[in-house]
Amino acid sequence: MHKEKQTSISELGEFGLIERLTKDIKIKNNSTKKGVGDDAAVLEFGNKQVVVSTDLLTEGIHFNLMYVPLKHLGYKAVAVNVSDICAMNAVPTQITASIAVSSKFSVEAIEEIYRGIHLACENYGVDLVGGDTTSSLTGLTICVTVLGEVEKRSEVYRSGAKPNDLLCVSGDLGGAYMGLQLLERENEVFKVNPNLQLKLSGYDYILQRQLKPEARVDMVAAFGKMGVKPTSMIDISDGLSSEILHLCKNSGVGCNLFEEKVPLDLQTKQMAEELNMNPLVAALNGGEDYELLFTIAQTDYDKIKNDPDITIIGHMIEATEGANLVTTGGSKIPLVAQGWNHGKGG
Amino acid sequence: MHKEKQTSISELGEFGLIERLTKDIKIKNNSTKKGVGDDAAVLEFGNKQVVVSTDLLTEGIHFNLMYVPLKHLGYKAVAVNVSDICAMNAVPTQITASIAVSSKFSVEAIEEIYRGIHLACENYGVDLVGGDTTSSLTGLTICVTVLGEVEKRSEVYRSGAKPNDLLCVSGDLGGAYMGLQLLERENEVFKVNPNLQLKLSGYDYILQRQLKPEARVDMVAAFGKMGVKPTSMIDISDGLSSEILHLCKNSGVGCNLFEEKVPLDLQTKQMAEELNMNPLVAALNGGEDYELLFTIAQTDYDKIKNDPDITIIGHMIEATEGANLVTTGGSKIPLVAQGWNHGKGG
Repeated sequence: MHKEKQTSISELGEFGLIERLTKDIKIKNNSTKKGVGDDAAVLEFGNKQVVVSTDLLTEGIHFNLMYVPLKHLGYKAVAVNVSDICAMNAVPTQITASIAVSSKFSVEAIEEIYRGIHLACENYGVDLVGGDTTSSLTGLTICVTVLGEVEKRSEVYRSGAKPNDLLCVSGDLGGAYMGLQLLERENEVFKVNPNLQLKLSGYDYILQRQLKPEARVDMVAAFGKMGVKPTSMIDISDGLSSEILHLCKNSGVGCNLFEEKVPLDLQTKQMAEELNMNPLVAALNGGEDYELLFTIAQTDYDKIKNDPDITIIGHMIEATEGANLVTTGGSKIPLVAQGWNHGKGG
Repeated sequence: MHKEKQTSISELGEFGLIERLTKDIKIKNNSTKKGVGDDAAVLEFGNKQVVVSTDLLTEGIHFNLMYVPLKHLGYKAVAVNVSDICAMNAVPTQITASIAVSSKFSVEAIEEIYRGIHLACENYGVDLVGGDTTSSLTGLTICVTVLGEVEKRSEVYRSGAKPNDLLCVSGDLGGAYMGLQLLERENEVFKVNPNLQLKLSGYDYILQRQLKPEARVDMVAAFGKMGVKPTSMIDISDGLSSEILHLCKNSGVGCNLFEEKVPLDLQTKQMAEELNMNPLVAALNGGEDYELLFTIAQTDYDKIKNDPDITIIGHMIEATEGANLVTTGGSKIPLVAQGWNHGKGG
């Protein structure tokens, strides 16, 4: 349709594209407090704040039906959205779920996806309030939008980190990525010889991290109990490096991340060894862990220090000092974000 | 994955499928006032009511890129969602928009879709507050979620119609369907001989009805000014027959629709004549007009009678008397809903 130069999406990159598409937005409604650019938008309706976020998952890009059970897929579609609400320090309340399927899918297959959606709604205490079930020429697409509630002044953005704040992460990292490597390896084996026994045992944890990730609604509750409000927060969908750079950019600070502090599960390390990989790479660039990455003021250290699920992995510094990985050997390497992964948007 | 009987989607039909997928939902949150089953969900946050609706549009099913300009597509994706908010008697405030595209789409093409989205946001006074831009293996998918506001007790459901209420419609019907017929005919001609002059002139109105439908936000404002609260309302996305049956079923009433009252534009009639079709069929089964179908109490008749944009097309009766088309000749034919169209969901 255009005679002008055509730019490929990969040329611009995911974040460049989103920036280009949303840079000219002018907010028109008083109820819009924060629009595009964080894990979720923040809306003010009367005396309440509502947060809203959305994700689109497509077959062959975000999931492979060769090894992802449909119920898990439905569950994951909800969990990754709820995770965005958690990253705002908010409590999820409702979702809408839309599914486009080709005619090769049976009603029973769609029901199986919905079983996962319903289970996630049950576990996270959210209501499924709407959606759309529609046809597609090929493949399966799922779009979930989630709404949540947060008290005024309790919401946490990507932009509040200050130099000297402690950089923290919940749970452990890299497991989802190593689970995916395992599934892909066994899928290849299966394609060559369907009669061979798959070697999945002993790797339950990393498989679960990939197939049935959980949103950290428990962390939001824990922050409330501990009386801690993170100064900035984001959920880890794209890998630690990329998310740290988001916090740094949005907060106008730099960061020192300590290699030795990055929490890795034993299975993550074992699988990495088996595949001759560095597990740190899985944590830094793998993504899909859906843990919370956040910063707290040093004065809050005593409140979080006894929580076994929180690891301090670094601290924030002046922007001019950069965002660095401090290796076990003591050298500083600038953190680099991965490019266009599977296109996880704001 | 299942050994049980597999049911094809077409066997169950769109509405049967949605019912099966959502029948077991139990609402858990106090903030959820009305979940699945109307044009939009109704949520209560503090002293405010928020309505939310979502739609998924897929290439080859909802649109054909051979003749739908990308900018129009972006506009329409917003308009059809805003239309659902209007059908609740609410004012749209925010949208999220997610797009999945294959790598054959350039950045410029995506920008063109966004130009349409931004224009619709401008026209309807809504803010784009989030979304996701992601890859797909094939084709283009757009998912839009829209939020709106409505004062308590001002929202209108599909379920409030009473016998003797007047059945009304805004604007005229069947134009979008006849516009589609024209586009498809000319597309066939073009495929056979790209050098032939396309015969699109003189049909601006029905082309616009198909390519750039408008949500009736003006009608919601008009109801406010006239002091009318419809007793039930739905937007016409699937065709008049299907929508009337929704109002009847949800309200537990029947209906007499008068053939001669159905508003048809001159171009709709002309195009139908050219194609040797009955334009009434386009109105009854065509869909995509995005006009508002609503019922009002007879006592409100005086308030609406002078609005040139509202046509009274029938009245509601007892459920036992059925939902009927009363022909110009005076015979009564039961109204029948079309089956699985393009899968427009609740």
